[in-house]
Formats: sequence, structure tokens, C-alpha cells
Amino acid sequence: MRTHYCGEVTESLLDETVEVCGWVHRRRDHGGVIFIDLRDREGLLQVVFDPDTEAAFATADRVRSEYVLRIVGRVRRRPEGTENPNIATGQVEVLGREIEVLNRAKTPPFQLDETDVGEDVRLRYRYVDLRRPEMQQRLRTRARVTGAMRRFLDSRGFVDVETPMLTRATPEGARDFLVPSRLHAGSFYALPQSPQLFKQLLMMSGLDRYYQIVRCFRDEDLRADRQPEFTQLDVETAFLDEADIMGLMEAMIRDLFREVAGVELPDPFPRMTYAEAVHRFGIDRPDLRIPLELTEVSDLLTGVEFKVFAGPAADPKGRVAALRVPGGGSLTRKAIDDYTHFVGRYGAKGLAYVKVNDPALGREGLQSPILKFLPDAAISGILERTGAEAGDLVFFGADRARVVNDSLAALRVRLGHDLGLVEDAWRPLWVVDFPMFEYDDADGRLYALHHPFTAPQADSVEAVQAADPEALLSRAYDMVLNGTELGGGSIRIHRPEMQSAVFGLLGIDETAAREKFGFLLDALEYGAPPHGGIAFGLDRLVMLMTGASSIRDVMAFPKTQTGTCLLTEAPAEVDEAALRELHIRVRRTAKD
Amino acid sequence: MRTHYCGEVTESLLDETVEVCGWVHRRRDHGGVIFIDLRDREGLLQVVFDPDTEAAFATADRVRSEYVLRIVGRVRRRPEGTENPNIATGQVEVLGREIEVLNRAKTPPFQLDETDVGEDVRLRYRYVDLRRPEMQQRLRTRARVTGAMRRFLDSRGFVDVETPMLTRATPEGARDFLVPSRLHAGSFYALPQSPQLFKQLLMMSGLDRYYQIVRCFRDEDLRADRQPEFTQLDVETAFLDEADIMGLMEAMIRDLFREVAGVELPDPFPRMTYAEAVHRFGIDRPDLRIPLELTEVSDLLTGVEFKVFAGPAADPKGRVAALRVPGGGSLTRKAIDDYTHFVGRYGAKGLAYVKVNDPALGREGLQSPILKFLPDAAISGILERTGAEAGDLVFFGADRARVVNDSLAALRVRLGHDLGLVEDAWRPLWVVDFPMFEYDDADGRLYALHHPFTAPQADSVEAVQAADPEALLSRAYDMVLNGTELGGGSIRIHRPEMQSAVFGLLGIDETAAREKFGFLLDALEYGAPPHGGIAFGLDRLVMLMTGASSIRDVMAFPKTQTGTCLLTEAPAEVDEAALRELHIRVRRTAKD
Repeated sequence: MRTHYCGEVTESLLDETVEVCGWVHRRRDHGGVIFIDLRDREGLLQVVFDPDTEAAFATADRVRSEYVLRIVGRVRRRPEGTENPNIATGQVEVLGREIEVLNRAKTPPFQLDETDVGEDVRLRYRYVDLRRPEMQQRLRTRARVTGAMRRFLDSRGFVDVETPMLTRATPEGARDFLVPSRLHAGSFYALPQSPQLFKQLLMMSGLDRYYQIVRCFRDEDLRADRQPEFTQLDVETAFLDEADIMGLMEAMIRDLFREVAGVELPDPFPRMTYAEAVHRFGIDRPDLRIPLELTEVSDLLTGVEFKVFAGPAADPKGRVAALRVPGGGSLTRKAIDDYTHFVGRYGAKGLAYVKVNDPALGREGLQSPILKFLPDAAISGILERTGAEAGDLVFFGADRARVVNDSLAALRVRLGHDLGLVEDAWRPLWVVDFPMFEYDDADGRLYALHHPFTAPQADSVEAVQAADPEALLSRAYDMVLNGTELGGGSIRIHRPEMQSAVFGLLGIDETAAREKFGFLLDALEYGAPPHGGIAFGLDRLVMLMTGASSIRDVMAFPKTQTGTCLLTEAPAEVDEAALRELHIRVRRTAKD
Repeated sequence: MRTHYCGEVTESLLDETVEVCGWVHRRRDHGGVIFIDLRDREGLLQVVFDPDTEAAFATADRVRSEYVLRIVGRVRRRPEGTENPNIATGQVEVLGREIEVLNRAKTPPFQLDETDVGEDVRLRYRYVDLRRPEMQQRLRTRARVTGAMRRFLDSRGFVDVETPMLTRATPEGARDFLVPSRLHAGSFYALPQSPQLFKQLLMMSGLDRYYQIVRCFRDEDLRADRQPEFTQLDVETAFLDEADIMGLMEAMIRDLFREVAGVELPDPFPRMTYAEAVHRFGIDRPDLRIPLELTEVSDLLTGVEFKVFAGPAADPKGRVAALRVPGGGSLTRKAIDDYTHFVGRYGAKGLAYVKVNDPALGREGLQSPILKFLPDAAISGILERTGAEAGDLVFFGADRARVVNDSLAALRVRLGHDLGLVEDAWRPLWVVDFPMFEYDDADGRLYALHHPFTAPQADSVEAVQAADPEALLSRAYDMVLNGTELGGGSIRIHRPEMQSAVFGLLGIDETAAREKFGFLLDALEYGAPPHGGIAFGLDRLVMLMTGASSIRDVMAFPKTQTGTCLLTEAPAEVDEAALRELHIRVRRTAKD
């Protein structure tokens, strides 16, 4: 129906007759002539109808925004002074000869170049929203990203294998979406949270290198930027160690950024231990673009009179840390109050600070409500260790270590953005040497920091059982970019006795382990190779690469915060007959 | 952990030291020396341990089938007379120096080269079954197929877009799998039977060319070779007509066969109308490798005394057709009885036949229980029209057209295989000009032969409403290969008034249409371009290309006929607490 995309009609086609199809982006009359900006996915093209072409002019006169047209006409140079250097077709226009209305359109619910359209309206009329060039570019970038991933992995001998979507509920981890079985009354499939066990089974099947770009599901309460279904690049390999896997995966990400974004990432990516990341940044996914760091000052404050500091400083589970803000001396009382309120969200009960007027003067050169509680030695120690200079401000966190880390890590990022300190760069990082377990005080039990199939750094069951569980390190690794976790993985346990030992530490006894993971334990008995892998969150990666502010903007048909599709109105009620076939009924609550 | 895959160790590495990893395929003692055939995904490698290397020999002596090993050794030429020309590494062996047991293995439930293992055992121990080279090759071929599809489509400007898995129940078509919503009590998502409406919405979004290799779900009673989840290549385009789309898609399939199978398919694929296909082969997906055809003989038999023929011949919904079998005169009475029984499955009440000894002799040269009921004119007409020759046999079907078509189509394929008439070739075909609707006598209503979004060949709503619905043709097309439907698609309706008219003919009134497809009808109002597409069944295509006998053999983790995963034991019962969160309860039947 066309010879060219609108966006392809440039000077090289001067004097040729072209046929184009697309949507009316704008229509205007000007000096007795009708101008139509016709839009397709490749761009805009200006078409002119003058009254000489009677029938065409009459039709052109009737079209409205978003009508779908087919136009035939001759390409000519735009009159001098009317060129548009901002678009590829800006030197030319088409003199329309024929025009066909392929479809009419009601007045759209919003104009495509409106910037302030509510997200609910955008999602309700997604087919209009997706006509916006930036939305199309995001979807196309997403396709280029997965294309580049596939090319890289195919070239390295990885095999794309599909794993089931209707599978067995995972007893650990987030909540599953369940699917009632019709043929097996009272039984349910679960949608996968990840293909973790299947990809491990593929390694036991000798497939050696596997990948899949795969939909995963988590029925969690939807936080700010989560979706009930999301996509990951899932990778698993046999006979490779963590250094091999990290090397391959960062090469893939480098290729990807080079190819899709024209960006050269460092080779190799820097590596940092979990302990160092938490020590310096309070978090295991530090944004290295921000030049602020935490300084440990617990040891300087163990004996001081000021209990707010002395308590956590002396507590093995406490921490006192300082965050030096260069130039922060100019922060107003109001700004500091805001930050105090901000860290409150992370559990901090206050936000002590010291303004540094002249560090050479010691106590006299400082300004702070807490100075009077601190001895000279502590003050000079803090000044020295933070390297604070005139005009700086030093914030303090003092509490349980988790609260200090969470609040100062968040404050660090917030300050970085507020004070314009964020470097314009891509700063990838591998975080390694994670703890195997995390102790949950409330539940009084250990949880796996990654998942229960992650291998410990200890080689033997005896060594694992002899160690302090909270001190055990795992063979896990996370890839972090600009403060976002892009992916995480690990070397997996491949010996059945080690898997049982780890289940044991997690409080999963023999019977429960058999019931929940029997097929995995069986498979480990039949010749499982050493193996490990990684998974990347595709939505978040594309969001970063396109500069979108939400993962919803890099998905064609996302759901709202409450898991609703505003376009199709899913989920919806279904016929009683359908439920009967599935052997379930809806449980009506009292208020129904 | 290795320098080479086992299957890569060939003469070019003579005298070099290699490190290999893999599974013990076979271990044998021979003349005081231990031979291990080590297997990885690239092949087998013979490793020899002699008693000189004491520690290694002792370890090698202890290993059993499917142990996972790492071996270091020197490549040498095999002694003359012991080469194995059947494998790539057959000229060499490795003299083992070091051996490490990476993991032990219990005696596997079956040997990898056993050919007669029950499918239940294979599925239960899929991680052992998938180690078989032919299973690995099938999965790898599948990955090459999708890779080739993606390359072709990417190069033609198609954009890979993901559509939702948690969506709205489809009111037409097969049964949906449902997913109860936790956040919306009493509401359910449905898993998609296909992304049909989403891909149409993407065309309305201006994306122009879309594809996706996507999981789809149908909760149907599982016939012979169906799976509850299956994968399709889903394609949609805007501003192209059926000829354009068929041209693109057959070019893709040609590329695919050339690249993956080294097969050159015809260019262009032949095209045949639905009417011709049913007339000549009784079916809309004829296997063109079989040189048998149906011959219409209704008109020759309208007035005959033999009611079995005369009734259907005179009935507008009946059909009498002949199937000439060259050389079929040698079929035994027993064989003919078997075929009679066989067509009974398709509703045929019998299977009349005529053996042709000498057609020149007319009635005298024939042999058949029905001859006496047929006048000479009918007999000579049949002989002439079928072109029957001496030694042939002619079968007859006489019944409602559907029964005749179904039974003779099936008989034709069965005879083709039984008599060795199937050409060794790839015979693709486009079937076009399908009817829009099929009348269901039982329900007394029309059904869409493809789906309710398929465009009619009539251009205006008036023309559609004036026509005999059963005579209306659609703009649908199916791609058929060797009797299998590879894919099907159509130009879609893009005008809201036409969509309403077609819904009307299907008995879906305004209110129901709004309720079920409101969002589609809305979208058609806001500037929908002309569009159309196609979907290919990936599992079946790969099955054909690999010569596998079941789609289960081209899926890593398939389900059984009753939708069970024997490996993970899904579906399974879940905790009452989980059901409570989902606002559902299991409906216990009386017999529980």
C-alpha cells in the first residue's frame, strides 16, 4: 500500500512520486492550502493539498487528527524559509495528488505531544499512547536490547531453551500466582517466579550453556515500580566458575551498551565485596556516580557521654557512621529538617550533623547541637577521618547497623541528586562475597540471602556445619549499575549432601526437603555437574538505558499498582460454570 | 575447568595436553587398561588410563556410568584398527593423567542408548533423558529455528514486543486457564490463548510490524499430541495485504529450511483455495506428498437405485466421492475390512469399493458387491472420471459431505503410508479463500472458521449483510506443510462498523460485544489501520523439521496427556492459607 515510510521521504526522492500511509498528526489550513503532517513509525512527513486537485483537496479538508490515510504525491523541496531542521524529512514536502481515508478516528483522549497526561488515561488508551514517538522508541530499544543479548549468547554457544509456565508452587520466596487444574480436582499449577530449578535441571541434562528471555511472576504487594509479571534474561552454565561467568556476562553487557547506546563501559567492571559496599555506602548496590561515602566512626565514640552515639557504638549489632557532604555547610535549617524527616522513613530516630566552618580551629570551628556531648578526641578523630573541610557538613547515623546503613545509603543518594553531585556516567560494579544467610530476629531463623541453592564458599559439609552461619560467605555475585541491581547469580550447590546441609541450616528438615524439593535432590544424585548462572531484570535494564522513569514506560501493556490492566479491564469476574469446571468457588467475605 | 569440549578433541590436537569435563558414557576394562568414553554436549571422547598412573588409575577404576569427571591427559592417535569412524573424535584417544570426580551418580534409571524406554520414566527422569544426543539435538535445532526466525524478522523491520500473560478471559474459543487475583477478590486473570487482540492493538499503536515468540495456553481435553502450554511465532503487520504477508512469511520459512535443514523449498509456495482443497483431498490441509485424490461422482449417481449413493448424491449437504488407489487391486479382503473399520472412526457407515481387473471390459472387468446396484452409465462414468486402470481399486464415500471428506481424507493419508506412496519431499502450500463462517447444526448458529476478527472478502457492511453467510469468503490464509497446518492468519477487520456486523452474524449482540470486546471496539474508533498477520505453531514446526514423532520430544519439560509434569509433580495441592489469600476454596465433590 506504500512505497516508503513517511520518515524515509528525504531529498534523495525529490521529484519522485511516493505512496505513504499513516496517521494525521496535525492538519492546518494556511493561505487556502491544507497541510497535513502524516506520521508513521519512522517519522513525520508534510503533505500539501492545494485546491487544484479538487477531490483530494475536499477529502483533505475533512480529515481530522489520527485519521488513517493513504496518500500519493510528488516529493518537492519546501519553499525557502519553511524547512524544518528538526526532522529527517524537513527539507521536503509531498504535493498530494490522491488521498484515501483508510479509517476515521474520534477525537483522541489526549494529544500525542501533550506531556502532562495522567497515567491512567494513557494506560486506558494505550493504543493512542504508544503512538507517541518516545514510546515507540522505548519498545524498539527493548527489542534491540534483547536482540543484542541473543546474538552475544548464541555466538558463545548458549542454547535458548523454553521452560514451563505451568509448574509447581515454590515453597520458598515470594507468593506464587496459582492456576487451578481442571483435570486434577483440588490441585494447582503455579506460574514461575523464575525458571531456577528448571535451568539447574538443564545443566544436569548436559546442555552446558542455557539462556532464555522469560516471563516471571510474583504475586507481591506492588511497591512503587514493580509489576506482577516481569521479564528476565536467565542464564545457566556448567563447568564454569564465578570468574568465568562474571567475565562472560560483563562482556555481554559491554556489547549491549556499545551496540544499543553507543556507550563504552569499563573492561573489566570493578569488583567490590559485600562487606566493603555496606561499609562504604551502606548498601550492596551502591551508585558509584555519587562521590559521597560513609565513614566508620563507631570506635571513636564507644565511651562518650552522648548515649545516642555511645550505645550503638558499643553494640556489636550497632553502627555509628558519618557522611561528609562537601559544601554542605550551606544547607539551611529547613533542608536539614527535611533530610531528618527523610531518614525517618528508614527507621532513623534523628539525624545528627556538624557544620564545619574551619576545621583547623577544632571545636571552635564547628557548629552543631551535639558538640557539647563529644570529647575533643572524638571531634578531632571525626574531622580527621572524614577529611572534612571548611564549608562542609557531616551527617551522622547511630542506631542498629541496618537502620544506619539504610538511612545513610538513601540520604547519600538523595544528597547526590539534590546537590547536583551525580556524575554523568555509567558506573557498573560487581558485588561479591555475599553472606550465605541472614538471621531474621522476628522469625528467629536464618534465611538464604540469595536462594537456598546458592553454594557456600566452604567446600565441605563439615566446614559449613562448623562455621558461624552468619559469617559464612556464598559464591553469589550481583551486577550493579548506577545504584540499580541489574542482575544476580551464583554458583549453585551440585552435591546432594551439601544441599541437604544447607536446607538443614535453613530449618528445612529431611521430610520437608523431600516433599518440597524431592526432584531436585534426586537429580543431584544422578550426576549433576558443577554449575552456576545469573538472571538479569530486563525491564529495569531497558528503563535505565532509555532513561524512562518507570518500568511501565518500557512495557507495551503494563498493569497498575493494583495489578489491573486498564485497557482490557483484567482481572474480571468469570462465569460460575467456569469455576465449577475448575473445582473452585469464590469465598465470599462477610461484607459481600 | 576445561580446554575443549569432548567432541572437539580431534587429530588437530595430537600430542597436546587437554582438559575435558563430562559424563561417563561407558567404562570398560580391557587388557589391564581402563577405557572411559566421556560425553559432553559436543560428543564422545575415549580416555585411557593405564596402571602406570597409579592414583588416576585407581580413581578411574571406581567410576561408574554418569559420574561427572574432569580429566587431564595427552591426545594420541588410536592404535591402528581401533579407530571409530562414526564419531568426530574417532581417530584419537586421550591418555589420562589426572582424573577428578566432580560428582558421583546412582545407577541411572535407564541407559542412554536404550531405545525402548517408557515415556513416563523418561519424563520422570527428564534430566537423564535429555542427556541423549538426539534429545539435545532437537532442543538445539529448536533454538536454531527460533534464531533464524528472529534474524529474518529483525532484518525486515519487525519489532519483538512482549504482550501480557496475565490478561482477560477470552469469551470465544477454547477454555482459558484462570488465575485468581489476590488484590481483587472474586476476579480472575486468564492466561492467553494467543496474543490476538494485543497484536491488533499494537498495529493500532502504529508499531507497523510486530512479532513475538510467545507461550500460549489452552485448557482443552488433551488429544493425542496437544500440550496445555505451547509456543507460537506470532506476527502482525499494518498496511500490507494478504499477498504481501504470505510472500514475507513464505520467504521466512524458506530461509529457515535452507539455514537449519539445508532444504530448498519452492518459490513461490503453491496456493489453493479452500474449496479446491476440500474437493480434491477432503481436507483443508492436504498432504501433497501423497499422489491420491478424491473424484467427485455425485452427479453420476443422483438417480441410481442404490440408495446408499443416491441419497447423499441428491442431498445438497451430501457428497459421493471416489478415491482411486493405483495398484489397490491387490488389497486383501482383510485389508479392506481394516480400512472399513478405520473410516468408521470418522463417521462413515461403510466403505464401498470396486476392484478394477480390466476397465476395457466395463462391468465385466470389475469386481464389487455394489456393481449390481449401479447402471452402466454410472459405472463407465466412474471409470472414466477416476482414470482407473487394470489392477487399481476405487473406494467410495457417500454420506453427509463432512463425513465423506473426513473419512476419505484420513483414508487417503493412511493408504499413502501403507502403500509406500508418500514422496520423500517437503510440499508446502497456502490454502486461501476460506469461508467466513461455519454453521453448527447442533447449536443452530454460525461460528467463525478462523476467529471473529477476520475480515470478509466483501468490502462493505451492506454486502456482508446481503450475502448468504455460509457462502461468504474470508481474507484468511493457512500455511500447510506435508499435511500439517504450520500457521494460519488473516487480514483483520479494521472498521468498527464491520466488526459490529460480523459480531451480529455470530449472534453476539451489541451489549454482549461491548461487554466482551469493548476495548477492541473502542480502539477501532480511534484510527485503526488496515492490518493482518499470522501465527505459526512452533512445537509442530520443530517436530516436523527434526522428524520427532511427538511434540513432547521437542520440548524440554513437557506434560503428559493429563497435564501432569512427572518430574516436578505439578499440579499439586496447596495450603489452605494460600487459597484463603486468593479468596477461593476448593469445591469438594460428593465422592470426596
